[in-house]
Amino acid sequence: MRLVVIGGVAAGTKAASRARRVDPDLEITIYQEEPEISQSECGLPYLLSGTVEHRDDLIARTPEEFAEKDVEVLTRHRVEKIDPDNKTLTVKNYTTGEEFEDSYDRLIVATGAKAIRPSIEGVDLDGVFTLHFLSDSDRILSFIEERSPKKAIIIGGNYIGLEVAENLTERGMEISLLEAEEQVAVTYGPEVAEKVEEHLEEKGVAVFTGALVKALVDDGEGRVRAVRVMHSGEDAEMETELVILGTGIRPEVPDVALAEMKPEVPEVSLAEAAGAEIGPTGAIQVDKHLKTNLPDVWAAGDCVESVNLVTGEAIWAPLGDTANQMGRVAGTNAAHGEDILEFPGVLDTGLFKIFDLGVAKTGLSEDAAQEAGFEVVTASVESVSKAGYYPGGQSTFIKLIVDGATGRLVGAQIAGGNADKYVDICATAIWGKLAYPDLINLDLAYAPPFGPTLSPVIAAASVLAGEFEKKTEGVRARE
Amino acid sequence: MRLVVIGGVAAGTKAASRARRVDPDLEITIYQEEPEISQSECGLPYLLSGTVEHRDDLIARTPEEFAEKDVEVLTRHRVEKIDPDNKTLTVKNYTTGEEFEDSYDRLIVATGAKAIRPSIEGVDLDGVFTLHFLSDSDRILSFIEERSPKKAIIIGGNYIGLEVAENLTERGMEISLLEAEEQVAVTYGPEVAEKVEEHLEEKGVAVFTGALVKALVDDGEGRVRAVRVMHSGEDAEMETELVILGTGIRPEVPDVALAEMKPEVPEVSLAEAAGAEIGPTGAIQVDKHLKTNLPDVWAAGDCVESVNLVTGEAIWAPLGDTANQMGRVAGTNAAHGEDILEFPGVLDTGLFKIFDLGVAKTGLSEDAAQEAGFEVVTASVESVSKAGYYPGGQSTFIKLIVDGATGRLVGAQIAGGNADKYVDICATAIWGKLAYPDLINLDLAYAPPFGPTLSPVIAAASVLAGEFEKKTEGVRARE
Repeated sequence: MRLVVIGGVAAGTKAASRARRVDPDLEITIYQEEPEISQSECGLPYLLSGTVEHRDDLIARTPEEFAEKDVEVLTRHRVEKIDPDNKTLTVKNYTTGEEFEDSYDRLIVATGAKAIRPSIEGVDLDGVFTLHFLSDSDRILSFIEERSPKKAIIIGGNYIGLEVAENLTERGMEISLLEAEEQVAVTYGPEVAEKVEEHLEEKGVAVFTGALVKALVDDGEGRVRAVRVMHSGEDAEMETELVILGTGIRPEVPDVALAEMKPEVPEVSLAEAAGAEIGPTGAIQVDKHLKTNLPDVWAAGDCVESVNLVTGEAIWAPLGDTANQMGRVAGTNAAHGEDILEFPGVLDTGLFKIFDLGVAKTGLSEDAAQEAGFEVVTASVESVSKAGYYPGGQSTFIKLIVDGATGRLVGAQIAGGNADKYVDICATAIWGKLAYPDLINLDLAYAPPFGPTLSPVIAAASVLAGEFEKKTEGVRARE
Repeated sequence: MRLVVIGGVAAGTKAASRARRVDPDLEITIYQEEPEISQSECGLPYLLSGTVEHRDDLIARTPEEFAEKDVEVLTRHRVEKIDPDNKTLTVKNYTTGEEFEDSYDRLIVATGAKAIRPSIEGVDLDGVFTLHFLSDSDRILSFIEERSPKKAIIIGGNYIGLEVAENLTERGMEISLLEAEEQVAVTYGPEVAEKVEEHLEEKGVAVFTGALVKALVDDGEGRVRAVRVMHSGEDAEMETELVILGTGIRPEVPDVALAEMKPEVPEVSLAEAAGAEIGPTGAIQVDKHLKTNLPDVWAAGDCVESVNLVTGEAIWAPLGDTANQMGRVAGTNAAHGEDILEFPGVLDTGLFKIFDLGVAKTGLSEDAAQEAGFEVVTASVESVSKAGYYPGGQSTFIKLIVDGATGRLVGAQIAGGNADKYVDICATAIWGKLAYPDLINLDLAYAPPFGPTLSPVIAAASVLAGEFEKKTEGVRARE
């Protein structure tokens, strides 16, 4: 019995490990296009500042470690075609240039996502980079060592863009961040995004929201020398020596023309070409056992669509931890050849650090909750991350979003000290279908070095109780 | 309508504030025996090292601030008697020495707890202190300034004793900690307690468990000069200049002979004398609306017994955050004169820091779960508090305890980095009745500066899944 896994980052390696544990006799091969497997994309920005010193620190496991578990890993191998009827694969070996056929009994597609290179003029100039793989950070670091740029422009103000802004600032560079939307961190609520923008400015990053990049300007020798941008209704040219594209990633089922991938060109993906159903988010559609519509083909990780457990709608949530969790489910089911485990869905939880500010969300923002049809009640509090008298406390903003009909928590937005803790409390509470009266009495832990007497989650829930009282009084008054 | 609150720390002040918010016309008086109200007991150890610089930083609110909200606060006033039939109180003014009568329509008893002075020889010598109020820390700090002791012995290895050990060490003193039980942190599991003991020793604190204190030795001039102790079957005399009694606290309903209170002498409490039912834990018994058996008398905070939501049994859980939450319920209900809010109970969540180690628990330890009749399945993992490659990570031990019959989480024990976060996830999960399969797929937040890709809560839940598989296979094998 032969299991093939296409893709060797979070979902693929986890799936292979699980499959091996379930069935010691299974023949398992991982095909990985990049030279490394198990690389942490989330760690890449920290290589740019030297916070993480060695690139290899970002490689969690090597092909040799998998070989010890009798899992074959073939790097620099690209699966070019899946034939689901004959259960065969066409594979290209990048090192030798050879193409060959392989076959599978069961297949896991874990092809991940690729960085978008937007189709703007000058995007292929020297000095313009995306950051998605170790090979990208290698290129950026070589460029920085060679040219010692003083200025960089980051296009796109989401996770990668924000984290790169921090890390290049830490390196001593002068950073401008351009974001086309009216706020950075577009998947977060505006209150939180505003705090991020303020914090960036405090740390010396020039932030331009509503900034439309028109072109990257050639210095005449094939190098980028400026970014042409429309901002506040005016065209401007901003000088720079380095551009990082943080314009987002999209689900990727490997196609034959990666280098030409543009966000507006629908990609012809490996899985899609093989007949796999693609969902409304553009990622591969799977059932709750992470099975595709193709026989004996499962899919996991950033290439897969999930379910938002708050709305029940399809969502594309490409994150390393989710990929890992999906890999466990897909690997177990594929190894058994039957549907043992379910992946229930996600809450769209997110977390990042930008300089000294932790920022987090789970569930729906207020706007998203309204769009989803909830009658929304919210409460926000400003708190502090340690007891008031204990040194080193940091302020924290938290906003809870609840369903007015049931009182149930449907979302939280957090910025400041302990953001990582409070978001995990809220994510667990949403998972457990807790309503605000539960949160008020929740027996959370308290000690002065770790937070105020009452967790801001509890404090915000108490404010919610007041909002619900007002609402009830309003109803009574109208009656 | 007149509401009287007896006790002005966490529960009492919160209850009075809530009552004022509910009913602007209510006449409200707080009687407080100590000179200050709203003092943070949890902050007291940090005064001893200077981590918290000013004693007044530990006072959250003053009588003047309450006066602005039209709440009368009478400090250094002790309620000596409650007459529930006539709804009158006998009050003693400590400043004038006068005794007078007062009356109430509704009463909240929030008399808290008192430090135990064990009935051992020499316990009243100069240089022997408890630490429960600001007046205690004032006395200890005066003593330290006057005498500059180099050595101190702490009797009792629970919250206060451990935190004092840290803070006096930080001050440069040589500390020995004596604990009668076989481990410190007796309400925690042995794995966690062992890590605390190791950490204390690493930081230079000499820890003696199973150490029975026989007597405190007089230097001939009324000062303590040594502790006589039986340890490992042998009697020893340990020299010291200062002794802190961290021998625990007990629920307190003020009695007329505080100074003579001994743990083995049943205290005749104010509420008990008035006919209030005392529960099996020795604290005041209340219904879920925090009402006592006396007409129009509620009770809240450390003097009150609660329900352990995991076992359904009575539990005494004297903590500042719980007291605050109870105060909200009692204050609301007393102000309305009817039972509006419920206090559901507690999970026995706990958290403390000892030097660089965070230690936490929620729900039941493995032993407690077994005693409560659960068929227990557990899993422990060692993890790290940041992504492996991100600098500054700290190791973390986590043990999950689940009910074998349902798979539901019933407890967690944690020591190390992010202990405060992981315990709050687990407490919320227990509250939401989550089982281990929920925890495996839980959409917690991940970013490299805040934790490993998979939260150790998720990792431990995955180990639990393996334990349950083994169990199922074991059952099959026996069949």
